[in-house]
Amino acid sequence: MHAVPLLDSSANDSDTPAPAEVPLRDLRRVTIHPDHWYPLAWSREVKRGKAHGVRFAGEPIVLVRTASGAVFALEDRCAHRQVPLHAGVVDGESIRCCYHGWTYDCTGRCIDVPYLGRERLPNGVRSYPCREVEGLIFVFPGSAVLADETPLPSLGSVANKAYKTRRFGREVKCHYSFMHENLMDMNHQFLHRRQMGQMRARSLGRRRGDGWVEVDYTFAREQGKQPVGEALVFGGGNKGSKGGQGGKDVMTVRTLYPYQTLQIRTSDGTLVMDLWIVYVPLDAEQRTNRTFGLLSIKKPGIPGILDLAWPLLVWFTERIFKEDRWIVESEQAAHDEQGADWNQEVFPVINELRDLLRECGVPEAPAAN
Amino acid sequence: MHAVPLLDSSANDSDTPAPAEVPLRDLRRVTIHPDHWYPLAWSREVKRGKAHGVRFAGEPIVLVRTASGAVFALEDRCAHRQVPLHAGVVDGESIRCCYHGWTYDCTGRCIDVPYLGRERLPNGVRSYPCREVEGLIFVFPGSAVLADETPLPSLGSVANKAYKTRRFGREVKCHYSFMHENLMDMNHQFLHRRQMGQMRARSLGRRRGDGWVEVDYTFAREQGKQPVGEALVFGGGNKGSKGGQGGKDVMTVRTLYPYQTLQIRTSDGTLVMDLWIVYVPLDAEQRTNRTFGLLSIKKPGIPGILDLAWPLLVWFTERIFKEDRWIVESEQAAHDEQGADWNQEVFPVINELRDLLRECGVPEAPAAN
Amino acid sequence: MHAVPLLDSSANDSDTPAPAEVPLRDLRRVTIHPDHWYPLAWSREVKRGKAHGVRFAGEPIVLVRTASGAVFALEDRCAHRQVPLHAGVVDGESIRCCYHGWTYDCTGRCIDVPYLGRERLPNGVRSYPCREVEGLIFVFPGSAVLADETPLPSLGSVANKAYKTRRFGREVKCHYSFMHENLMDMNHQFLHRRQMGQMRARSLGRRRGDGWVEVDYTFAREQGKQPVGEALVFGGGNKGSKGGQGGKDVMTVRTLYPYQTLQIRTSDGTLVMDLWIVYVPLDAEQRTNRTFGLLSIKKPGIPGILDLAWPLLVWFTERIFKEDRWIVESEQAAHDEQGADWNQEVFPVINELRDLLRECGVPEAPAAN
Repeated sequence: MHAVPLLDSSANDSDTPAPAEVPLRDLRRVTIHPDHWYPLAWSREVKRGKAHGVRFAGEPIVLVRTASGAVFALEDRCAHRQVPLHAGVVDGESIRCCYHGWTYDCTGRCIDVPYLGRERLPNGVRSYPCREVEGLIFVFPGSAVLADETPLPSLGSVANKAYKTRRFGREVKCHYSFMHENLMDMNHQFLHRRQMGQMRARSLGRRRGDGWVEVDYTFAREQGKQPVGEALVFGGGNKGSKGGQGGKDVMTVRTLYPYQTLQIRTSDGTLVMDLWIVYVPLDAEQRTNRTFGLLSIKKPGIPGILDLAWPLLVWFTERIFKEDRWIVESEQAAHDEQGADWNQEVFPVINELRDLLRECGVPEAPAAN
Repeated sequence: MHAVPLLDSSANDSDTPAPAEVPLRDLRRVTIHPDHWYPLAWSREVKRGKAHGVRFAGEPIVLVRTASGAVFALEDRCAHRQVPLHAGVVDGESIRCCYHGWTYDCTGRCIDVPYLGRERLPNGVRSYPCREVEGLIFVFPGSAVLADETPLPSLGSVANKAYKTRRFGREVKCHYSFMHENLMDMNHQFLHRRQMGQMRARSLGRRRGDGWVEVDYTFAREQGKQPVGEALVFGGGNKGSKGGQGGKDVMTVRTLYPYQTLQIRTSDGTLVMDLWIVYVPLDAEQRTNRTFGLLSIKKPGIPGILDLAWPLLVWFTERIFKEDRWIVESEQAAHDEQGADWNQEVFPVINELRDLLRECGVPEAPAAN
Repeated sequence: MHAVPLLDSSANDSDTPAPAEVPLRDLRRVTIHPDHWYPLAWSREVKRGKAHGVRFAGEPIVLVRTASGAVFALEDRCAHRQVPLHAGVVDGESIRCCYHGWTYDCTGRCIDVPYLGRERLPNGVRSYPCREVEGLIFVFPGSAVLADETPLPSLGSVANKAYKTRRFGREVKCHYSFMHENLMDMNHQFLHRRQMGQMRARSLGRRRGDGWVEVDYTFAREQGKQPVGEALVFGGGNKGSKGGQGGKDVMTVRTLYPYQTLQIRTSDGTLVMDLWIVYVPLDAEQRTNRTFGLLSIKKPGIPGILDLAWPLLVWFTERIFKEDRWIVESEQAAHDEQGADWNQEVFPVINELRDLLRECGVPEAPAAN
């Protein structure tokens, strides 16, 4: 066993300076920064005239779709007895608590207590900036004054008719940082050997800017044939053999805090796959996240063929995601047990990613005396 | 979110003095006072020649019904290896531990260890004062010397042949104080709108005495018709229309620590419904309680009609209790998450009830250094 | 309730000196000593070319059976991302982590990282001494330098063809010390009264040596007839009536730390039953153990009759073990709730056993600052 946790040991990484003597913050305890737009639900989950309870990093939030179809977001507990507002009744453009009928408008103001005069109304609840776009309901959980100046993220090719998009997501029981590292370290193809055959990733280079880091890969098949499902997702051999020398596809994985993208381009620059994904912490400890992903595939020349193959693509991606979910949950379980980050990371871009996630997260509170 | 928990904020309550500057005890951490008689089981649960394990506020207690039919109550663990005595064997008027056969009489004295001489018998276990009345087995978990001078509670109309009584109860995962507040604040009729239609409670006045607080209500139907189940429980419209001006029924809810009653009287003073209820904490944290309730309904003039309608009454009350259980468990869950009482109570009698429950509970231990 | 936990109170035990004034260590918090050989799996659980994850006192250990059939034991987490190696791939005589393919040999050395040069290989993982004997895989979890000088335990009559052996085991949710005390205190026959009828154990005497304690018993039937299952296990009445005066069987129960044995000999000295058993802590708190038992029965004169009766013996022993598991788990539950050992032990050999288990366990760490 290790006497001392190894944080981002870079002893084997000749092109990175040696780590400073000060111990690094445990990345798995870095809180995600709330001053960004986070999707908290799919539009279809919030039906007209209904309320829907969600969580962001432990904060209960109710999404309300009113009679007019608009959506607003409030703290999900009545100011009176703290029970969830999402169990209440949508009444026109307001929501009424299920217990004693206290009523709130879209700003969180209490506008009615049935057994009190209007002149004695109590304080209301917090409201959150809320926007709906491309089937996602985004909430700004941080400082509300920053919401207007903070742009919504670009959602990849989801609005481009030349692409077909799969919306997917699930709960994963791990810190969001494991998700970023999993996707960015393509050496983990070994995990998917049963789905993809033995592929070897080759890192072409990495770049880092303000709030982002990215890396390019090509892939070489070591053994076996390309599965049909994979050909659909990543592009088939007819566009340029991955195993050959010329005309290789390039995959670029980027974390643009707090979002992540994965794009595959053919040698002629065509974007054949475009994934946008984000990992939203659910609990206060940030040990669970809900993934919202938009996977856009460029439609091939023959109309309808992608629709035909879609069930196969869904099946293939689900199997990949299942393996990824299992492994990141195993990482979290190891961290829970060890109580610290014992990782011995040797891959340079992952160490850069880890620095980025630390820097962009909520700064550590100064130590109490 | 609230920076500071709001304890019994009475800012909107003009007829109550402003709260003192000293922070109030968190009511949800007030331990119920053990120097009262509490029912711990229904008589039918403790069969002749059998032992039955129960809990009071975390203390394991075994109820033993001996060969003669008498019931006694002991600490539910053998003095030897601490295993539950309720798994043992009732032997005449004593109980024998299932493991090595240590035997205790009704006072808790160890009267036999099969492999030791009688002259070397070890210490026994604690016994509790125990009484059986009206199908309930009451135990006095506090200071035994106070048991004789403390009367058993009056159980309402259960012994009156003019009434038919439903015995009911269940475990509810919340502090007992939420139960008292739920029943006493009849503005929560909104919660039962699907069962009862929209009713509005009107508080007629409240009274407070030594160890008790009570409040009177009338009800006005705002919408819909009276359901049949409700007519059975609360009395039908033929006895005086609740919606009309004259002849209204009056409901009185009283907490007489630690018990609670709810009575409905018609305008001519007839007691048509008489509920006695108590909420017995099960765990040491007092986050779970077992309810014991006796709901007595005055038999109408036509013989047998109440028996005929009984299944409907059971069905109706079960649905009401299910909603109440769900909401008080939601309140407890909110308290667990918030770690403090954020309630913003505005209804005067509930604030009086909260004071009563604080005053009658176990006094706070002086702070350790 | 007891104001003070009673640790091994021996007030009633005239032949044992009064306990010293210093409070005894809580036996249920004494950590088992790792400098012994412990079985961590049955041989059949570790198939050729497969890895199998186990635990010793919270330490995750992977048992690997290579292509050649040899077994080795490593720390069950990859040095890279800490995920369990037992989910990996056995590759010849090495094991490859399932995630990014890091590879370890039988000494725990990292011999390959697919995307790093061989000259930059990172540190590996811990290995454990490992031996396979009589269908059990033994590991030495303590100081590896002591493994060679520490003999494997003698496994009773398992290798003797005159005996037939049942291998059994299960997880039991209690500290290992409860298991030792359960088996050694034969006054607990009362627990098995439904399986065995009422038997009274009589202690003939006890002996203690360096690292061991043992006690002899005879049994007298108080009531009922000997069940057939019991006759098979403990020997039937035709070898000497247990209830009679002459020719009694003698049972010897011995703890030879950390193992335990139970042997029954007839009056002519024939060993008719020979049990070897050990209780391996699984979790770091040592609140759960896995039992590995070898129950050897002397074959009677008529060939095949024991095989014929074997299912009955299995059924009988399973019922006994089920009762024992339930009671020791009840003891653990009581200890968890009480937070201390309140036992009031009066049987001398059990108090000696408790001393032995304390002395042989891991010494208490000196108090911090």
